[in-house]
Amino acid sequence: MDMMACELNFQSDEKTEDLQIEGLKIIQNKKWFCFGMDAVLLSDFADIKKHSKVVDLGTGTGIIPLLLWAKRKPSIVYGIEIQKEVAEMAKRSILLNGLEESIKILNADMLRLDGVLEFNSFDAVVTNPPYIESNGGIVNPHGNKALSRHEISCCLEDVIKTAAKLLKQYGSFYMIHRPYRLVDIMALMRQYKLEPKKMRLIHPRKGEKPNMVLIKGVKLGNPELTVEPPLYIYDQATQYTEDIYKIYGLEKP
Amino acid sequence: MDMMACELNFQSDEKTEDLQIEGLKIIQNKKWFCFGMDAVLLSDFADIKKHSKVVDLGTGTGIIPLLLWAKRKPSIVYGIEIQKEVAEMAKRSILLNGLEESIKILNADMLRLDGVLEFNSFDAVVTNPPYIESNGGIVNPHGNKALSRHEISCCLEDVIKTAAKLLKQYGSFYMIHRPYRLVDIMALMRQYKLEPKKMRLIHPRKGEKPNMVLIKGVKLGNPELTVEPPLYIYDQATQYTEDIYKIYGLEKP
Repeated sequence: MDMMACELNFQSDEKTEDLQIEGLKIIQNKKWFCFGMDAVLLSDFADIKKHSKVVDLGTGTGIIPLLLWAKRKPSIVYGIEIQKEVAEMAKRSILLNGLEESIKILNADMLRLDGVLEFNSFDAVVTNPPYIESNGGIVNPHGNKALSRHEISCCLEDVIKTAAKLLKQYGSFYMIHRPYRLVDIMALMRQYKLEPKKMRLIHPRKGEKPNMVLIKGVKLGNPELTVEPPLYIYDQATQYTEDIYKIYGLEKP
Repeated sequence: MDMMACELNFQSDEKTEDLQIEGLKIIQNKKWFCFGMDAVLLSDFADIKKHSKVVDLGTGTGIIPLLLWAKRKPSIVYGIEIQKEVAEMAKRSILLNGLEESIKILNADMLRLDGVLEFNSFDAVVTNPPYIESNGGIVNPHGNKALSRHEISCCLEDVIKTAAKLLKQYGSFYMIHRPYRLVDIMALMRQYKLEPKKMRLIHPRKGEKPNMVLIKGVKLGNPELTVEPPLYIYDQATQYTEDIYKIYGLEKP
């Protein structure tokens, strides 16, 4: 463990990873949920303007605020995380990068943000919420991991309702989720006046069904959805497509 | 004009076209809306069981009942068409093929089917409704063509509401429409209890946005959408993809 790690109170089971953009690093805990490609895809999809005020709902390790800061230069990103230990680790990642002025991690319940963040004031809300419903699928019994991966502490409706409260008029909502929930997503977004405006489906390979969907909504926007061309992750069995290299800011070898 | 054409009262501006399946022919009028690829794609997408009872809402030339009969062998298909002249022409196409026992064209308003067709009794409803909303886009001033292409005499909600009335429990609804209306489509289908279960986006070419969407709903079905791999129409500028050749029942040369 180096000096920096000591000052930042590294825990056993933790590791730092180089994000390969603007020299950023992130702390992750091997026992918990580690960030994946979905965070990278969402940060790329979210066409947030420079100097925007942004909230990330369920920020986890803080990966999305870090990537958004690197790619979009928002003036401030608030990362909301309900799990105390996870929020503490995310805070240390922000410190590690010296970004405590630009990124604020709040250990809070997204359903209790009244008085914590100003409603109707944000330019953008991003979220990579837990995917599997609490009444379905196999719930990982290990506390934090289960909480991140499953809809135990919050559900799709809570995320959408909270985003609608935080955003100002014509503010943008960006989410990555599973295609099988698309009808729920669209119905709830419309119900809470976050009109779906742009959608992109992500397929592992050509000829395969999508396993992720990126969606953008605009608060009080007019109905009319633009569906983007599909995004493929792999060219062949394990070779990333040129699009994925581009999103990661790398050249395909 | 041959003998057959005379007996069937062919009009000027009419032509017959060979459907290249089971020897079927269809009468079309060059001044009106002619069937396009959407009817072929919808008939292929609609996985209707043999001996089913089916309704086609807004049947136009009768192309969809003919293709469904050829591909799926339903016991009966009712084609509902509000325009008298168009319905008459569709009837003559059915006669031309000797299918008057299997396909019934009804010149009726889909909003006034009470007493015409039995509600809650059909296995499947298919529809290729007019696309452009009556308050948007350029409306073609030539009567019949405008009525087919635009939502003048019916709107998306009427089609979905009518399908929901006609279908029996767990009966299937199949529609081809435009992706920009996807949020309206999903919200209305759910509202009228036709839960969206399967969706396929159709793109002209790789890397291009979809311009059509196929959607299947099940009356009183459980929420969970399957998104299929995308369907591409062209390989290059004008060459059809292998998938399209397959749908047309042809071998790619």
